Amino acid sequence: MLRYNDPFVSLPWVVLIVGLFEEWSMLGFIFSVGFLSLGIAGYFAYEVLRKDKGSPAMQAIANAIRIGSEAFLKRQYKTISVLSLLVAACLFLIYAVKDGPAIGFLTAASFLFGAASSGVAGLIGMWVSIRANLRTASAATRSYSEALITSFRGGAVPGLTIVALSMMGLALLYALFLYGLGHKNEEIPYLLVGYGLGASFVALFAQLGGGIYTKAADVGADLVGKLEANIPEDDPRNPAVIADLVGDNVGDCAGRGADLFESTAAENIGAMILGASLYPHFGVGGLLLPLLVQALGLLASIVGIFSVKVKHEQEAPMTALNRGYLVTSVLAALFLYFPIMQVLHNIWFYFSGLIGICASFLMVAITIYYTESKYRPVRTIAINSQTGAATNIIAGFAMALECTALPVLVISISLVSAYQCGMQSGIPNGGIFGTAMATMGMLSICGYVLAMDTFGPITDNAGGIVEMSHGDAKTRSITDKLDTAGNTTKALTKGYAIGSAALASFLLFSAYLEEMTKYSGGVRAVIDMAKVTVFVGALLGAMLPFLFSAFAIRAVSEAAIDIVNEVRRQFKNIPGLMQGTGKPDYAACVDIATRAALKKMVLPGLLVLGMTVGVGLILRAEATAAYLMVGTISGILLALFMNTGGGAWDNAKKYIEGGALGGKGGDAHRAAVVGDTLGDPLKDTAGPSLHVLIKLIGTISLVLAPIFM
Amino acid sequence: MLRYNDPFVSLPWVVLIVGLFEEWSMLGFIFSVGFLSLGIAGYFAYEVLRKDKGSPAMQAIANAIRIGSEAFLKRQYKTISVLSLLVAACLFLIYAVKDGPAIGFLTAASFLFGAASSGVAGLIGMWVSIRANLRTASAATRSYSEALITSFRGGAVPGLTIVALSMMGLALLYALFLYGLGHKNEEIPYLLVGYGLGASFVALFAQLGGGIYTKAADVGADLVGKLEANIPEDDPRNPAVIADLVGDNVGDCAGRGADLFESTAAENIGAMILGASLYPHFGVGGLLLPLLVQALGLLASIVGIFSVKVKHEQEAPMTALNRGYLVTSVLAALFLYFPIMQVLHNIWFYFSGLIGICASFLMVAITIYYTESKYRPVRTIAINSQTGAATNIIAGFAMALECTALPVLVISISLVSAYQCGMQSGIPNGGIFGTAMATMGMLSICGYVLAMDTFGPITDNAGGIVEMSHGDAKTRSITDKLDTAGNTTKALTKGYAIGSAALASFLLFSAYLEEMTKYSGGVRAVIDMAKVTVFVGALLGAMLPFLFSAFAIRAVSEAAIDIVNEVRRQFKNIPGLMQGTGKPDYAACVDIATRAALKKMVLPGLLVLGMTVGVGLILRAEATAAYLMVGTISGILLALFMNTGGGAWDNAKKYIEGGALGGKGGDAHRAAVVGDTLGDPLKDTAGPSLHVLIKLIGTISLVLAPIFM
Repeated sequence: MLRYNDPFVSLPWVVLIVGLFEEWSMLGFIFSVGFLSLGIAGYFAYEVLRKDKGSPAMQAIANAIRIGSEAFLKRQYKTISVLSLLVAACLFLIYAVKDGPAIGFLTAASFLFGAASSGVAGLIGMWVSIRANLRTASAATRSYSEALITSFRGGAVPGLTIVALSMMGLALLYALFLYGLGHKNEEIPYLLVGYGLGASFVALFAQLGGGIYTKAADVGADLVGKLEANIPEDDPRNPAVIADLVGDNVGDCAGRGADLFESTAAENIGAMILGASLYPHFGVGGLLLPLLVQALGLLASIVGIFSVKVKHEQEAPMTALNRGYLVTSVLAALFLYFPIMQVLHNIWFYFSGLIGICASFLMVAITIYYTESKYRPVRTIAINSQTGAATNIIAGFAMALECTALPVLVISISLVSAYQCGMQSGIPNGGIFGTAMATMGMLSICGYVLAMDTFGPITDNAGGIVEMSHGDAKTRSITDKLDTAGNTTKALTKGYAIGSAALASFLLFSAYLEEMTKYSGGVRAVIDMAKVTVFVGALLGAMLPFLFSAFAIRAVSEAAIDIVNEVRRQFKNIPGLMQGTGKPDYAACVDIATRAALKKMVLPGLLVLGMTVGVGLILRAEATAAYLMVGTISGILLALFMNTGGGAWDNAKKYIEGGALGGKGGDAHRAAVVGDTLGDPLKDTAGPSLHVLIKLIGTISLVLAPIFM
Repeated sequence: MLRYNDPFVSLPWVVLIVGLFEEWSMLGFIFSVGFLSLGIAGYFAYEVLRKDKGSPAMQAIANAIRIGSEAFLKRQYKTISVLSLLVAACLFLIYAVKDGPAIGFLTAASFLFGAASSGVAGLIGMWVSIRANLRTASAATRSYSEALITSFRGGAVPGLTIVALSMMGLALLYALFLYGLGHKNEEIPYLLVGYGLGASFVALFAQLGGGIYTKAADVGADLVGKLEANIPEDDPRNPAVIADLVGDNVGDCAGRGADLFESTAAENIGAMILGASLYPHFGVGGLLLPLLVQALGLLASIVGIFSVKVKHEQEAPMTALNRGYLVTSVLAALFLYFPIMQVLHNIWFYFSGLIGICASFLMVAITIYYTESKYRPVRTIAINSQTGAATNIIAGFAMALECTALPVLVISISLVSAYQCGMQSGIPNGGIFGTAMATMGMLSICGYVLAMDTFGPITDNAGGIVEMSHGDAKTRSITDKLDTAGNTTKALTKGYAIGSAALASFLLFSAYLEEMTKYSGGVRAVIDMAKVTVFVGALLGAMLPFLFSAFAIRAVSEAAIDIVNEVRRQFKNIPGLMQGTGKPDYAACVDIATRAALKKMVLPGLLVLGMTVGVGLILRAEATAAYLMVGTISGILLALFMNTGGGAWDNAKKYIEGGALGGKGGDAHRAAVVGDTLGDPLKDTAGPSLHVLIKLIGTISLVLAPIFM
């Protein structure tokens, strides 16, 4: 199978990789890179943690954020554990009845392993970010460069850890099934789906619970603070301000961590299943290729992270971050060449992989266009704020609808061209494997993107700590600059997350069809759209993201009103609060947000589970394929609408706050705050949860396909 | 084929119908009912027009509305004519190259005939409504009962005319092809698709142009009038008030008329194509059954319309209207039995038809639940207005997302159960014909529903005329009562319109697959969802309604701002305007709205056309099926979101205006006005245009299927 005569492969270091194309050596390489990444993440963590912790005032605030975040995560994980155990028990029963207790046990155990890994990934992300925030705030009192490096390397810890854990978890299971239980190579991918389901399941609740928490606190704080009491954001007199800062950690950090953990797991499993269908052509290399690509992408991300430095004090943070992004992408594109050529022996699949990397670039660029204030969309919303809240909302609504178009075109063109490249390879069914390659390419840079993403809540928190501890103007200007960059990275990583979720879901969909084919005894499954059940499955699939979003947004709105009432009560009852002599009861708001988020995340979560299982059992496997396909498409469109629209409303407000159109406190600003408040639950609760939803329905269908047939 | 021994058929009068089951006699029956309906419509028109025209003040206002409406329609039809001629030329070329000039000519001619019929239908609707409004206003000075009858019978004129024209147009073409050109019966349905495309094409522009006009004027008038100058709705000092009243006619009346004209045409053509595929089983009766059902439905509607009377002065208008609706539905359900048993000889298809009638009832009931202020949804939005515009919008947004769920369930259950009934018939492919029967059942009561719908703009206009001519309190209370009922009927006919559009689209989709089968030489067409082009087609289809809505909403928003500026200019420059001594320049606002609507309706219209043709030519017929299916689904969901959400926002505002939560002028009211303003372009521009869009992509695909293959 191996060819050493390819000129590109004769580079000395590549010989090392070339020697690896047997199961044990490939797995060894994957584990080595995994441990290396964990080691470097540990080094970054050590470096960040030993930094100065700043003034006692700063420490007191950071402490409050830490306690609130930890308390939430503890209670959230308890709820998720109970739900996970219930699902595991169901899985055990279903598979035990069908395939015997051994398979039942394995499926349930993989599920719990996936769930636990996802939980650990979220935990690590948050553990670092609630410590790096204080160090960043303290570093900002000294220098801009140090603050940037501190916050970004803090973000890199979860970035590297999450991707490494996802990859190693699958590799570990693979090794266990292969060596420990003696399964055949080509059977193993189908046994991994439990792991993916566990990861999706936890990710949904993590993202949903965190999203409800963060926006209930944020909207609640804004409604009373900015609109009624006329005090600025992050003002220490606002009793909901700590809950707001906690929210950034539990939502953006733990939530998005679990989301992207899941994306990589789903993508790897989906691609491995397609690899299994091409086992006669590619052998075991085709099965482990997704993990190899991931490992090489991690190496590229590590180099990219090290390359982020400010060259001079005037350089904008985004310039430095984008440089790192470029380094990572170029390296990942180069690295991709070797495993593909060695395993698949076909340059066309390399082109497919490059298409994926290009697609991730374009998705990010489109997101920037729609959410940065120097371009038409945000400007239009800002201008429409001058005639009041109604026109602000209408303009933003139209923009949010519009912004679905270009990403859909990018995804469409990527899928078709990656497929065409795969077809050119001459291998039967190579087209679908081409789309899998594009997905692998896109997700190979995931480590770097996650580092940028976690950078967001860390800088946001650092800004809050400086503001609340009355830091000086210079420090504030540094944290403000970082915070603005953090908002941008949060928005653009959402563009990346939805793009990768779309491709990963297409992969899961293809894997589902592959599994249907397998269970029909090798007869290629055809989903006939002329059947009325298929149409109805599609209709129900399209409706799910709407209903789910309704529940998620309503949860935020109800919880926010509880917060508003509590804040009003404190303003009224605590003497001297507004004058700064009384101290607000932060813990009360933290507690309200915690309870509300935990209670309200259950119903939408169960809706997704129940509806998918219901469609599968009543309308059966063929209709489920349509449900999956159209549910995914509807979820992508709504998520684009909500994420990008929400980001545009947010930045239209920030643009006005920057002094345009009357500036802060003017009529346009008041109108823009209304748009921003609507955008909040869309972009940080419902939208990101939809990324997870579309992958969750994919993994549920994959796991339960045998009983839907 | 005929069976006279069925006990139900032995009723003497039925023998008449029984004798009709040959082409000429069935066509004769259809034409007879058609002319009868036109005659009764003429009688209603005569009855309404000879009524008293009220005071000179009233007449002056009605005159201004009439002139504005006619000027708009004239200019709109000019634009539509040019576009239609272009499309007709393209159709001629395509078909002439493919099938020779004769077929090219026939297709282009059918298209123009459909376009012209749809135009005439819209014209008649508006011609009556801009005259009935004044008579209703005048009648309201005398008695509630007379005002109700005047406005409702005025609405019945377009109601009956539109349905009769749509039915007779198809029957005429059928007769022409059969007797004039000697085509075979089973070939004719495929030749009728040009007529459907013509109707859809005009309907899109009529609904879109009218929708942009009405909401640009309405939003513009509200933004300055209510929010800035603090003058009530329909205040004669507001220069945009006439444009607003004109908008009701051109949007709700001409627009919805064209929409439902198109629904019946699309449904009839789709069902006839399915009938053609079952020609060996049902013969010519299966082809003409849709038109027979329509004719019987017209008879039921006529009885229903005559049954609308107020029993005593305290009876609410909705009670009287609902009684008529019930009468129509029960009669339609009874009438349905005879043609089905005579033509199809199978009771199961009758059950399918009943399912359609039940579904229309449920769709209307769900719409009422979500838009009437006595139920939870509107109350929740109203309560959330107390904490400001942001929470009003968030609550409404969540409700709009939620309200998609039940209609989707109703449509799903109807389709599956109608299909199952069809399967029980034992006829191969009978399942799909079962769904066609459900659609026929649902659309059989279309005449009555349209009468209720047009009742809306007539009463709205009458209220405006009374308000502007300073009518007395008693007259105002009567027109207010009618206006409220008119808002309800407008909302619930939208629920009906979207339900019937959904079913009609499923029919068009099935007909498209049938046509694919025909062009593949009888091999049953299977759309394989595993193909990447099919997935991409689906993705693009789902995106189309989003982008289209973005254009439509933005058009309203931009035109509204032009109106705002004009009104502000007049307030500033015309001396004594606010004191009531100066006279506003109504015509200037009418002109701005006209120009804006005509200019801005072109781009979204061409988007639909261009994208559908593009997908068909690039991704080909199989992907187009997915595009059609998912485009339809996405359109249904977005339309439900926009129509019902918009209605709920509107009525939350009205609920507060009725005195709840602080009443008119309070903080909650100001917040609710923002929600209403957002809801306006959603429920009256984008939402209703989406009904047309989903049928238009269906008819385009049907017409161009031969070149997509």
